Amino acid sequence: MNAVDGGVTAPAGFRASGVRAGIKPSSKKEDCALIVSDAPAAVAGVFTRNLMRSACVEWDIERCRAGHARAYFINSGNANAATGAPGAADVRATAGMVAEGLGLAADEVCISSTGVIGVPLPMDRIAEGVKGCIAALPDADAADDARASGGADAARAIMTTDTVPKEMAVEVALSAGTVRIGAIAKGAGMIAPNMATMICAITTDAAVEPKPLADLVYRAATVSFNQMCVDNDTSTSDTVLCLANGRAGVGPLEPGSADFEAFAEAFIAVCRETAKNLVRDGEGASKFVEIVVSGAASDGDAKTVARAVAVSQLCKTAFFGEDPNWGRFACAAGYAGVAFEPGRLAMWIDEVQLMAGGQAAEYREEDAAAVMQRPEFQLRIEIGDGPGRAEFWTSDLSHEYVTINADYRT
Amino acid sequence: MNAVDGGVTAPAGFRASGVRAGIKPSSKKEDCALIVSDAPAAVAGVFTRNLMRSACVEWDIERCRAGHARAYFINSGNANAATGAPGAADVRATAGMVAEGLGLAADEVCISSTGVIGVPLPMDRIAEGVKGCIAALPDADAADDARASGGADAARAIMTTDTVPKEMAVEVALSAGTVRIGAIAKGAGMIAPNMATMICAITTDAAVEPKPLADLVYRAATVSFNQMCVDNDTSTSDTVLCLANGRAGVGPLEPGSADFEAFAEAFIAVCRETAKNLVRDGEGASKFVEIVVSGAASDGDAKTVARAVAVSQLCKTAFFGEDPNWGRFACAAGYAGVAFEPGRLAMWIDEVQLMAGGQAAEYREEDAAAVMQRPEFQLRIEIGDGPGRAEFWTSDLSHEYVTINADYRT
Repeated sequence: MNAVDGGVTAPAGFRASGVRAGIKPSSKKEDCALIVSDAPAAVAGVFTRNLMRSACVEWDIERCRAGHARAYFINSGNANAATGAPGAADVRATAGMVAEGLGLAADEVCISSTGVIGVPLPMDRIAEGVKGCIAALPDADAADDARASGGADAARAIMTTDTVPKEMAVEVALSAGTVRIGAIAKGAGMIAPNMATMICAITTDAAVEPKPLADLVYRAATVSFNQMCVDNDTSTSDTVLCLANGRAGVGPLEPGSADFEAFAEAFIAVCRETAKNLVRDGEGASKFVEIVVSGAASDGDAKTVARAVAVSQLCKTAFFGEDPNWGRFACAAGYAGVAFEPGRLAMWIDEVQLMAGGQAAEYREEDAAAVMQRPEFQLRIEIGDGPGRAEFWTSDLSHEYVTINADYRT
Repeated sequence: MNAVDGGVTAPAGFRASGVRAGIKPSSKKEDCALIVSDAPAAVAGVFTRNLMRSACVEWDIERCRAGHARAYFINSGNANAATGAPGAADVRATAGMVAEGLGLAADEVCISSTGVIGVPLPMDRIAEGVKGCIAALPDADAADDARASGGADAARAIMTTDTVPKEMAVEVALSAGTVRIGAIAKGAGMIAPNMATMICAITTDAAVEPKPLADLVYRAATVSFNQMCVDNDTSTSDTVLCLANGRAGVGPLEPGSADFEAFAEAFIAVCRETAKNLVRDGEGASKFVEIVVSGAASDGDAKTVARAVAVSQLCKTAFFGEDPNWGRFACAAGYAGVAFEPGRLAMWIDEVQLMAGGQAAEYREEDAAAVMQRPEFQLRIEIGDGPGRAEFWTSDLSHEYVTINADYRT
């Protein structure tokens, strides 16, 4: 597996574009993105578990059930959530417009919306965005740089409070040839266990049937997007959607084969790196902290403890304050709801051991402080002798987070 | 029931004091408090469910099991948590010193510690605090104002990041005479469901047997200290402890009697008002918000939804930003894990209806903004037609919270 330039248009047979339609009037950047596959593609996704999920999530779940799609339209600036029956009608209308412009059927078009909740989609702006995106699409035989530029426009268009666009792509050599996987994502706030206010669009030119693709997306999300948090809010719009169009001429990849596993490994790596990038660019984040919990009875128990530390406001403000206040980390572990022997707790930040046998280890305060000053570090907590282990990625809680979220709608 | 002046020394037969022993060297205020009953008293408490609970919590649980106590010593500045076997020995030593100074047995002395976790108790300072507190106790026959002043000193001594001391007392007329209930409390951060980094000492001169007293403390905590949050962290030290000494000459109060219920009502009112005061003075809090959820299948379901909204960082920053961003409130309700029909959701802030039928209600933005600008308001969420109802008290998430907690140890 090698990293290659670009994002969703790095795999063969995908084009993309991004334009500004003024959906959030105060924003000057692109807010509509379109990804198109030049061939029929398998589609699979994982979605928010929030009951108040947006109408477009309902729509995409149907598309994934059918298993095939050709296009994916995403707008930022408005989540089209808590908008009732009119919101659902707006999704159908948007898909219809995209389909008409591309000569597809509406049920070949997936839709995501991210932004403010509870405000009707401005459909005149959306219509303009759809038209603009289709007009801006490079030709199918366009040069690589034109295709790459369209992908980059799409990555910018889906951003909300993100400070940098997130794109990545890899290439994997399989026995029958080479395939690529590309992704763009947006995240920033509402980054929580079981996804976030995040959208990740993944493309691949491998041929994978819808069912194994769906299994793989789920498997990858479990060890990437579902083990991160910025705040602890699960949004109405969280979506990871993958289109696999087979244009590399390799496959179909059979689950269980060595090629499938090599592909899966690369796919999971793309999801993990993308998830980490979302946390690194979390709202107001100045730290990236990897929490690793080991010695639990099960991986699930370990994840529960890791999550409790990762979402704790007191731990996150200690990260921000660069304060090795390990009592807070131990305290959060203690209320996670997982049984362990307090006198067995051990803890490290990178190379410095803070706790042993449930109390302070011998360490120099300045060594601990030096680790906390790093922009990225690992907090390891051992709660016993069990085989269970999990990791969780989190950011700090900063003044900037409060500022961003106190003023979000304005 | 009438409010009366004072706190834990308002009921007959209780004396208290508070002195500075320098447990947290950087603090200039009192940090050791002592409450003494002049007669044997029933004792009952509720405690943190955190596995990493402090050694003094273990000690107090034993005292409550035995059912009787005479004195309660509390220090701030150090939680004596995650301190292992030496921490437990320090609790026994402290109780021994108090007992010796007062002519009691060590197992008649309850102990609480609150402050930084993981640092051994400075026992020389504690010894000085015990000695100072005993010396500062008013005489048993001292005038009311001297007894009140001792209670106020104790209320100040237990504060950590609190900005104001919390004392309250009430008087209840029962068929056989009048009894009083008094309380002091500290809270501020780590205020979470299932209590907080909080300590509440309650005294009463009513006569109540240990078992009904324990049931009442539990019942009162459920509708007061267990339905509030500032952040979502449950500390190692949370304690609500009540001493009932019967010095009013009324009772013993029999559970089920009209007198007991009148007493219980007043007791619960003291706990609820104290809990609200803790949230009002939560770390960095500039708002007090009462979340009320109704229409749930059960009270438990309603509490789960109310808690999800109350602890959401995004909701709390919206409160701070005075932004009626109801999409966030609906979103938090949606991920609470309680099944409801999204199209049934309705929402109000005080008199302004924000949502009806799962989408925006018709309201004027300036009316909603005006409510959000109030220092206290109610957010009501109706999720269906069921009989379940719950309330939850929360504060906003402000810059001040981040500042306080990023710099706590220094």
